[in-house]
Amino acid sequence: MRCRKCGQKAVINMRQHRLALCDEHYLEWLPEQTERFIKKYEMFTRYERLLLAVSGGKDSLALWDVLWRLGYNVDGLYINLGIDGSLDYSNQSQRFAQQFADERNLKLINLNVHEQYGESIPEIAQRTRRGQDKTCSICGLVKRHIFNQSARDGNYDAVITAHNLDDEAAVLLSNSLDWSLERLGRGQPLLPAGGGFVRKAKPFCRFYERESAAYTLLRGIPYIHEECPYSTGSKQLFFKQDLNRWEEHMPGTKLRFYLNYLTALDEGAFPQRQESPAELDQQRCPICGQPTITGNTCAFCRLFEK
Amino acid sequence: MRCRKCGQKAVINMRQHRLALCDEHYLEWLPEQTERFIKKYEMFTRYERLLLAVSGGKDSLALWDVLWRLGYNVDGLYINLGIDGSLDYSNQSQRFAQQFADERNLKLINLNVHEQYGESIPEIAQRTRRGQDKTCSICGLVKRHIFNQSARDGNYDAVITAHNLDDEAAVLLSNSLDWSLERLGRGQPLLPAGGGFVRKAKPFCRFYERESAAYTLLRGIPYIHEECPYSTGSKQLFFKQDLNRWEEHMPGTKLRFYLNYLTALDEGAFPQRQESPAELDQQRCPICGQPTITGNTCAFCRLFEK
Repeated sequence: MRCRKCGQKAVINMRQHRLALCDEHYLEWLPEQTERFIKKYEMFTRYERLLLAVSGGKDSLALWDVLWRLGYNVDGLYINLGIDGSLDYSNQSQRFAQQFADERNLKLINLNVHEQYGESIPEIAQRTRRGQDKTCSICGLVKRHIFNQSARDGNYDAVITAHNLDDEAAVLLSNSLDWSLERLGRGQPLLPAGGGFVRKAKPFCRFYERESAAYTLLRGIPYIHEECPYSTGSKQLFFKQDLNRWEEHMPGTKLRFYLNYLTALDEGAFPQRQESPAELDQQRCPICGQPTITGNTCAFCRLFEK
Repeated sequence: MRCRKCGQKAVINMRQHRLALCDEHYLEWLPEQTERFIKKYEMFTRYERLLLAVSGGKDSLALWDVLWRLGYNVDGLYINLGIDGSLDYSNQSQRFAQQFADERNLKLINLNVHEQYGESIPEIAQRTRRGQDKTCSICGLVKRHIFNQSARDGNYDAVITAHNLDDEAAVLLSNSLDWSLERLGRGQPLLPAGGGFVRKAKPFCRFYERESAAYTLLRGIPYIHEECPYSTGSKQLFFKQDLNRWEEHMPGTKLRFYLNYLTALDEGAFPQRQESPAELDQQRCPICGQPTITGNTCAFCRLFEK
């Protein structure tokens, strides 16, 4: 397999694009495409202050590297969830994130769930006696809360996550099985600010997981290779395996699934209930002040209610 | 496992309903539920003339038996597709359908694609050089055309198919991956008449395949056990296998997937373009007179264009 641009030996073949590239051209191509998506979905500009959720894994470090090289103004936020297992998972991840930031003289905000709220994720999950999928959903809830709070406290213009196409397709498949109009109406790569929520963008949403992994490897960025010990057997992993089998059978399935969904959204597939800004402003949690649909104590603060 | 109604030995356990039944109560339950769905979705009444698509398989013969016992006025339509293989598949299926009708003194209309149009389904597929999935799509196109034409010619009030939940869920999953608003907007158990299309109803849409199979077996109805030789490796079968794995892992998945979809439709997902009756009346194929979206020669007639 030869690079389409220079004819040298290709290091990656992207069947869904019928495109093979050598290392040099791949390291050019991925940032170019990222820039294209940022502009296409009108995510953010170089004049804005951005906060990136950094996990220490391949996706978030690849995205930080790309945005930094493209000249965007991005700080990182590492949330130490207190997930240890035999791997000392959270502390190891944090070291990779910190090393990355230090080498590039970038700002990484570190936040420790146990120090901040008195309990780690596994401790909260154990106390509320939730099963494995529930641990993942508690973790998601806590991260979203902290992420939005930190962005508001730091006056960031937008928060960024490194979700890739495999992530987005798996969530979309799960939401399609439930047909939740609320969730299906919010799967865009850009969610505008509103009602106390900071703008959210996912610049890697059109890259396959293997593509961000290839970027990280070719750039020689050290990252945590292990998956979170709680992810084994999770619903999302289950759907990712199905999508991988479909992709194998019908190359491009994941990308078509996601892009056709975005087109369907544009065509009005899931009309959303529109709340007025005044209504939304009233829907704040009395404890933390963050937005909540019910207008009562938010789901995050309820986790810590005695 | 004991029957919930009488405590006798159960012959079927429906995990999604947490309901186990003996043979006697199962043979009562399935028609009661069918009647419930007919009323719930306002499909048709006992005063109307109905045309059922009969394949000679377990679903269509079970449905015909149930509707006949419930006192509905149903004729059958068997379309001989000329699929032979080593099994003489089409002719065998036809014999099962005819035997069923004769034993109950019911009217079965027999129609032979080769006799009517000069070519069988495999011959059309071969001439137009289509692959396996395409053979299934040609077959679907031909059956839909003949079915609608026969219902209009015979002045039937509604056409009925015996699609079960496994069929509907597989089609829905396939359509969800494509996000075709046109197709996703038309997955209801009842499609009203309009623009030259006869009303269409699917009274078995909420039964799992194994439930209609159990009914056919317990009633002792002979039917063709073989699957169509062309179905092996088809896209629909592929998705059915995935849904079966999900169902195994999370009982009730198929039913929730389908019912949540119907709720989403009710809540305004996939709004359909509304054509006026006058517009629709102009969109007729100049060759066969049946409705066609383009207003030019319909897809069925194009199959036979030289």
